[in-house]
Amino acid sequence: MSKGLFISFEGIDGAGKTTQINMLKAYLEDLGYTVTVTREPGGSELCNKIRNILLDKDNTALCSMAELLLYYADRAQHINEVIAPRIANGECVICDRYYDSSYAYQLAGRKIDESVLNQLNDLVVKDAHPDVTFLLDLTLDVSLQRVSGRGEADRLELEGLSFKQRVREGFLAQANKHPERICVVDASQSPDGIFSDILSHLKKRGIKA
Amino acid sequence: MSKGLFISFEGIDGAGKTTQINMLKAYLEDLGYTVTVTREPGGSELCNKIRNILLDKDNTALCSMAELLLYYADRAQHINEVIAPRIANGECVICDRYYDSSYAYQLAGRKIDESVLNQLNDLVVKDAHPDVTFLLDLTLDVSLQRVSGRGEADRLELEGLSFKQRVREGFLAQANKHPERICVVDASQSPDGIFSDILSHLKKRGIKA
Repeated sequence: MSKGLFISFEGIDGAGKTTQINMLKAYLEDLGYTVTVTREPGGSELCNKIRNILLDKDNTALCSMAELLLYYADRAQHINEVIAPRIANGECVICDRYYDSSYAYQLAGRKIDESVLNQLNDLVVKDAHPDVTFLLDLTLDVSLQRVSGRGEADRLELEGLSFKQRVREGFLAQANKHPERICVVDASQSPDGIFSDILSHLKKRGIKA
Repeated sequence: MSKGLFISFEGIDGAGKTTQINMLKAYLEDLGYTVTVTREPGGSELCNKIRNILLDKDNTALCSMAELLLYYADRAQHINEVIAPRIANGECVICDRYYDSSYAYQLAGRKIDESVLNQLNDLVVKDAHPDVTFLLDLTLDVSLQRVSGRGEADRLELEGLSFKQRVREGFLAQANKHPERICVVDASQSPDGIFSDILSHLKKRGIKA
């Protein structure tokens, strides 16, 4: 997208996305950007109603296609209501998970057909592509250690280990396909170490930060 | 679909779908069919959670693409959980609204691009096409008279007259495109008159009823 700055963060649970997003928001605001932090699913009041269906651990009957379509309904609404207007207005949007998560969770995780996902992604995303995406990459065992203290798990966090392994590999496959957009960051580092990598990636890509 | 019998009912509000569906259910059960009456949106507990978002009149911010995707998420779940298993088991399913409603409300009503709707419909419906569809056709003024006594209106019932007129025409356009599947019935008749038309259509199509 043009005009504003659109940044997405991706990665499996425990990779430290929230911490990095907050650090980057403060940093960019110091530079004078107007920054909105948002998330998928659930980036607006209406999107949160869709999120509630997606993450409710009682909804075990949800089939893969309905799950995928709910994520894209959330995304269509989120782009329309939150992301596109701010980017068109020259602002910065930082999004916690975006369509790379669909490729990791639904394609690699659920084994949805790639052509189905590509069709939906084209229909919904149109030109709302991030300028840059940070993939905070972490091995599964570190992820599990970090997440174990967090309290009750949601529907997706309750998935088995082989699903989570496929998701991690799905993220790395996306990064391989889109090296011009996705920066892979070693998320086993300290928060400051990760953030320093993020800033140098931004500078390398000529983004004023 | 093969094996069982899949019948959908379509039409604008006030056309008398519920009455006819109940009459047909009783009739088919007398003939020995196992009949499930269901609806879209909201044909299962999970589908009802999606229905609540779609019909909540507070959700005025819902964009057309998100609305369409929510209807198709509902449909994917409904086919997977309710329709396909029963049809495969040789039973009869009568559905109050199915994909012709998407063509009438989203394409004719909201003016969603036809190729977008066709893509989604192909992705989700696959071979779950009704054996026969009854379009209960009614002029807008009769519809409005019949609906006016019903109590509080939902999000779609609150749409304006030109939207409703486009929806009626959208249904008729679908019937023109699929005469082999869709029977248009004059819904201004008495309930018994409508039902007699429905039975003669079923017999004409060689469906044992």
